[in-house]
Amino acid sequence: QVTRVDQIAIAVPDLDEALAFYERAFGLVPEYRERVDSDGVEEAMLDVGGVWLQLLQPTRDDSPIAKYLAKNGPGLHHLGFGVASVGDALDHLRDQDVRLIDEEPRPGGGGHTVAFVHPKGTGGVLVELVEDDAH
Amino acid sequence: QVTRVDQIAIAVPDLDEALAFYERAFGLVPEYRERVDSDGVEEAMLDVGGVWLQLLQPTRDDSPIAKYLAKNGPGLHHLGFGVASVGDALDHLRDQDVRLIDEEPRPGGGGHTVAFVHPKGTGGVLVELVEDDAH
Ligand SMILES: [Co+2]
Ligand SMILES: [Co+2]
Repeated sequence: QVTRVDQIAIAVPDLDEALAFYERAFGLVPEYRERVDSDGVEEAMLDVGGVWLQLLQPTRDDSPIAKYLAKNGPGLHHLGFGVASVGDALDHLRDQDVRLIDEEPRPGGGGHTVAFVHPKGTGGVLVELVEDDAH
Repeated sequence: QVTRVDQIAIAVPDLDEALAFYERAFGLVPEYRERVDSDGVEEAMLDVGGVWLQLLQPTRDDSPIAKYLAKNGPGLHHLGFGVASVGDALDHLRDQDVRLIDEEPRPGGGGHTVAFVHPKGTGGVLVELVEDDAH
């Protein structure tokens, strides 16, 4: 039921520095930038041919991204898959005994409905489900 | 000069098991499967709305993927960006003092021309440049 790659998220210690690098090296510039206090991150979204590259900088030391950086250093953090309904996808994953982080859909960045699947359930990949925009 | 996300690559210890999981959990099935002996991998390519999900299993203990799995366990391994010319992209990155793994374009999976950029040059992300198909 996954129809598209919504985003690839990268943990960075310094968002300004990372944005300068992505522009200089790859010609990629941010579409928008947002602070998501509930997740303890400031994020920038770069549109790469219809897929978001999401750069994530922690805004406090106890945020999941801060802990990730402390443990692993900067790098690939999570993979976002687009689905028609996050609620239906969670029901399906529960039926398949896949371990979840979010048991219910919740608000994410950019006003989207999201939920995270536990990397222990997916073979080591932190997966974010992102609901398709209702148009 | 990056125009699209070509692929997201995931290191897996067992390709059959990983393929069974991606089908069962997300409804994703492989487009093709290939052994690339020069890289010491067997790979499966799943088309997710025009972006490749590349699952990589090592075929020998001294391959980079085997070493990665031994050190980090399974998970997100590299990110492939589509470019019009890998040679031009490498020239540009050299001009910008970005550290490379491949100094010259080389053959990768699926008959594509590729080159890898060193994670120390990109802020922790192993980046693969993949040349657009000539049509
Ligand atoms: Co995300
Ligand atoms: Co690859």
